[in-house]
Amino acid sequence: MVQFTNLDATEAYKKLLALAPHGKSFNFKQELQAERVKAYQVPMAGGLTYSYAAKAVDESILKVLQELADEQELVAKYKLLLDGEVMNTGEKRKVLHHLVRGQLGQKVLHEGKDLGAFYAQELQRFCAFAEKVHQGHYRGTKGTAFDTVVQIGIGGSDLGPRALYLALENWADRQGKRNMKAAFISNVDPDDGSQVLSGLNLESTLFVLVSKSGITQETLANELFVKAKLRAAGLDPAKHMVAVTSETSPLAHNSEYLDSFYIDDFIGGRYSSTSAVGGVILSLAFGPETFKAILSGAHEADTTALERDIRKNPALLDALIGVWERNMLDYPSTAILPYSQALSRFPAHLQQLDMESNGKRVNRFGEVLNYATGPVVFGEPGTNGQHSFYQLLHQGTDIVPLQFIGFAESQRKDDVEVDGSTSQNKLKANLIAQIVAFAKGKDDQNKNKEFPGGRPSSLIYGKTLTPEALGALLAHFENKVMFQGFIWNLNSFDQEGVQLGKVLTKQVLAKNSGDSALEAYAALLSI
Amino acid sequence: MVQFTNLDATEAYKKLLALAPHGKSFNFKQELQAERVKAYQVPMAGGLTYSYAAKAVDESILKVLQELADEQELVAKYKLLLDGEVMNTGEKRKVLHHLVRGQLGQKVLHEGKDLGAFYAQELQRFCAFAEKVHQGHYRGTKGTAFDTVVQIGIGGSDLGPRALYLALENWADRQGKRNMKAAFISNVDPDDGSQVLSGLNLESTLFVLVSKSGITQETLANELFVKAKLRAAGLDPAKHMVAVTSETSPLAHNSEYLDSFYIDDFIGGRYSSTSAVGGVILSLAFGPETFKAILSGAHEADTTALERDIRKNPALLDALIGVWERNMLDYPSTAILPYSQALSRFPAHLQQLDMESNGKRVNRFGEVLNYATGPVVFGEPGTNGQHSFYQLLHQGTDIVPLQFIGFAESQRKDDVEVDGSTSQNKLKANLIAQIVAFAKGKDDQNKNKEFPGGRPSSLIYGKTLTPEALGALLAHFENKVMFQGFIWNLNSFDQEGVQLGKVLTKQVLAKNSGDSALEAYAALLSI
Repeated sequence: MVQFTNLDATEAYKKLLALAPHGKSFNFKQELQAERVKAYQVPMAGGLTYSYAAKAVDESILKVLQELADEQELVAKYKLLLDGEVMNTGEKRKVLHHLVRGQLGQKVLHEGKDLGAFYAQELQRFCAFAEKVHQGHYRGTKGTAFDTVVQIGIGGSDLGPRALYLALENWADRQGKRNMKAAFISNVDPDDGSQVLSGLNLESTLFVLVSKSGITQETLANELFVKAKLRAAGLDPAKHMVAVTSETSPLAHNSEYLDSFYIDDFIGGRYSSTSAVGGVILSLAFGPETFKAILSGAHEADTTALERDIRKNPALLDALIGVWERNMLDYPSTAILPYSQALSRFPAHLQQLDMESNGKRVNRFGEVLNYATGPVVFGEPGTNGQHSFYQLLHQGTDIVPLQFIGFAESQRKDDVEVDGSTSQNKLKANLIAQIVAFAKGKDDQNKNKEFPGGRPSSLIYGKTLTPEALGALLAHFENKVMFQGFIWNLNSFDQEGVQLGKVLTKQVLAKNSGDSALEAYAALLSI
Repeated sequence: MVQFTNLDATEAYKKLLALAPHGKSFNFKQELQAERVKAYQVPMAGGLTYSYAAKAVDESILKVLQELADEQELVAKYKLLLDGEVMNTGEKRKVLHHLVRGQLGQKVLHEGKDLGAFYAQELQRFCAFAEKVHQGHYRGTKGTAFDTVVQIGIGGSDLGPRALYLALENWADRQGKRNMKAAFISNVDPDDGSQVLSGLNLESTLFVLVSKSGITQETLANELFVKAKLRAAGLDPAKHMVAVTSETSPLAHNSEYLDSFYIDDFIGGRYSSTSAVGGVILSLAFGPETFKAILSGAHEADTTALERDIRKNPALLDALIGVWERNMLDYPSTAILPYSQALSRFPAHLQQLDMESNGKRVNRFGEVLNYATGPVVFGEPGTNGQHSFYQLLHQGTDIVPLQFIGFAESQRKDDVEVDGSTSQNKLKANLIAQIVAFAKGKDDQNKNKEFPGGRPSSLIYGKTLTPEALGALLAHFENKVMFQGFIWNLNSFDQEGVQLGKVLTKQVLAKNSGDSALEAYAALLSI
C-alpha cells in the first residue's frame, strides 16, 4: 500500500538537511572537470541527454536523493496514476495525460468506458479530419481551401499548443511538412482577437475553439467575437469552426461546429498539449504524422520515467535536484534558458505547468505545509537573455538555479560563417561558456568584476529540435513536476487558486459586490 | 555635498527594520476600503495614475520611507545625473538617457560638445530620414518603396524597441499612423534571422543595424547574414541598411550604410529606447510625431520624478515600496502584470531594465553588500496569466509582490458584448477582482480552497495606451530602477556580469580554453 507522506516527515529529509551546506558554495572550481561532465549525464527519450554536472550535488547527496525517491515511493505513485487511480484528490479525478501518448499501465475504465480506446479514437478522428482539410474536402463558405488555422483558447488551451507550434515551424518548413499557418487568440482583451483577425483572410481560415468545460469566460467571448466577424464577412461560422471540449460541456454535439473532438476531465489543461487540445491545431498545421511523432517522443519519456534508479530516470533526477535546491539550498526561483529561438514560448508553458501544478501551500489532504513548494519559474531564449537579465544571475545577491536547453544543429540549416565560426557554433559556444561561468565564476581584485560562481545549472541537449525531441522535452518537464508534487505530497492536478478571481469578477460586472474596495477600483477604471 | 551611503548605514533603515512585520500579514481585509483606494493614489505623467492602496504600507511606514528618500538624497542624486555628473562610476561615464527626452538640468558638455544639442540634432536627422522614406525619396535597389523595417540588435537594442513597437501597433492602425510594418532579428541562433527573412520581400525592406559599440557578436553575425541574403537576391546592401551606433564605433561614418544615426556611451543599452536606438524604427513604423509623443510622455515623467514629496512622485514612491518589500518583507521576486495584450513584451523589457541595472552584489565603490538588491522580475499579460502562474501567486508558499497595469479603453475600439458586458469590461473586471483577491483573500474551512491574502500589488492605470502614456510608463520604470539603485548605493548603469561569458565563448570557439569542463561540454554539443 503506497503511503502519502509530507516531505518533512521522511527520514531522507532529515538526512538531506544534515547535508545542507548552509550558504557555503559548492566547489565547482575544483569539482567541475571533464570527467564529471562525462559521468553526470543520463540519456533521455527523443535522442536527448540530461547533464547535471553543473548541479550542486555529489555522490553522498545523490545517494540520499535516491533514498528519498524510494521512501516517497515516487515511481509507485506514478504507476498508480498510469493505472487510473484518482490522483487529483480535490476534484476526485483520474490523471490520464500519459494515456493519450500510449498505454503504460493497466487498461483504464471509467463507467465502463475504456479511456485508452476513447483517446485513441479521438486521435484517429482529428487526424482524419486534418487530412480531409488538407485534401480540400472541407472548404470555407465560398469554396476556398483552408490555409490558416486559429486556435481560440486560454491557459492550457493556449500556452502549450502555441509553444509547440512555434517550436516546429522552422523544422516543418525545412522538412516540407508545413500544411497550414497558425495563429492564436487567447486574451479577453478585445485588441488581441481584433488584431489577429485583421491580418487574416477569413474565407480561408478555420477556427479551433478549445474549452474543456465549455464555460471559459475569455474563450466564449472570443468565440462570439470571431463569429460576428465571420458573419460580417458573409461567411457561415458553422463551416469555419471546430470545437475541442468534453462530451459533457455545453459546446459538445453542437451543429454550430463543423466537427467536435473530445477530451475529458482526466486531461488537465496544462497537461493537455498532447491531447486533442494541441493535436487538432498541430495536425492541421504540420500534418498528423508530425503530431504522432511528438506523441512518440513523449511516450518514450513516460516509459523512461518508470525507472527506479535516479541515474537512469532524468525526470526523477531533475525533480529531486530541484527539491534539493528549493528546500535545502533555499532558492526560491528557477530559470529556463533554451538556446533555441524556436523555444521562445516554451518557458511560458513551463511557467504554467510548474507554478500552477505545485504553487500550493496545502498537501493532498488539505493540510497546511511547513516547507516551501513550487518555485517561481521564468525564462527567455539565449543568447538574448545574456544581454538582459543574466547580470543578476551572475552577480546578483540571490542565486537562481538554471535549466539550459541546446541543440547541436539548427532547424533551418541556413547559416553564415563570420570570424571563422557559424552562428550555430557561436550559439553553442555561448551556452557552454555560460554554464562554466555560472559554476566556476572568476576571482578579481576589483569586486565589481568578480564572479562569485557556485550558481548551478543543468543542460538538456540533443542533435536537433525534431517533433520526437520536442515531445520528449515536454513530457520530461511534465513528469518532473509530477514527481516534485509527489515529493512535496501535493495534489499537482487541481488549481483552486483561480476560483476567487472568477467570483469577484462576476461581482464587479454585476455591480453589486458589497465590497467597497472592489467598487472603488471599478470607479478608477470607469466600469 | 551629496553622500553615497549603503542602505544599512542609514538611520531610516533601522527605523524600517523596527517596523518590519516579521511574517505577519498586512490586514487588508480591514484596511482595504474605498477611502484607502481613493487616498492612496498619485497622478503620473501621460494621464496615468499610480495606485498603491493594495501595497502593504501604512502612514508610519510611508513616513519613514520619506525619511529614507531624504536621507539618501535620492532627488539630489537624480539631479546630479541630469546635470551630467559621472554616475556610471565603474565605466566612468555620464548617464544621459533623460536628456534625449528634453533638458531638465544644466547644459551637459563633454569635451566641449553640447550633448543635449547633439541628441536633438540626431533626433531631427532620423525624423527627417523617416519622412524621406515615407515620401519615397529612398527606395530599394530596384526602385521599390520601402514598406517594412527590420531592426538587427540584441538586448537593449531589441527588447525596449520591440516592446514599444508591439505596444503601439493597434493604436497606430486605429489612428491611421501606420507607415511601415516592422520585424526584429536578435538571437545569434541562425533560425531567428532565417525565419524572419523568409517571410519578407527583401526588395521593399529597410534594415536598421543597432550596436552602440559596433562589436556586438550576435548583431555583426546577423548583419552579415542579412547582407548575404540581400546580395543573393540581387540587391545592394548599402541601399537597404542604416546604422545606429556611436561615433567612435567601427560602424560609424561608413559608406556601407545608407545613413547612420548616433548615440554615445552615455546612453546605456537598456535605457536607449528613447534614443535613436528606438527612435529610428519607431519613426519609420509610426511616424516621427508618434515617436516625439513617446518622448513627451517620458519627459513629463522625468519632470515628475524631481518631486521631493514621495506622495507626489510615483517613481520614487514605487521604488521605496519595492525596497520595503525586498529588504523588510524579504520578497525575492516581483511580477509585472499588464492587462493589455499590446504590452505583451513590456515585462521582458522591464526584466532587463531592472535585473541588469540592480542585479548587483557590490556597491558603487566596489564593496560587497550585506543586503539584498534587485529582485527577479517576470510577467505576462492578464487575463492570460490568471490561467497560468496565478495559482502560485494566490496559494503558493512564497509571496510575490505584483505590479498591475490597466486601461479604461481598448486601442482598436473593436469589441463584442457577451452576457451583458464588453470584453474590455471583462478585462477590467478581472484586473480589479485580482487586486482585491490577492489582498483580502478568502477564508474557507477547506484549506485547499482558502486564499490567505496579504499579497500586495500596485496598479498603474490610464484611459488608453497612447504614445504619451507609453512614454510615461517607460520612464516611470526607468526612474524607479534608478531610485532603487541610489537607495541600495549601486551603480545601476554598468553590467560587468556579461563579461566572463564573452571571454569563455571566445575560448570555446578558439578550441584552446585550457579548461577541461569547457572542452567536455563542447564535445557534448559537437563543436
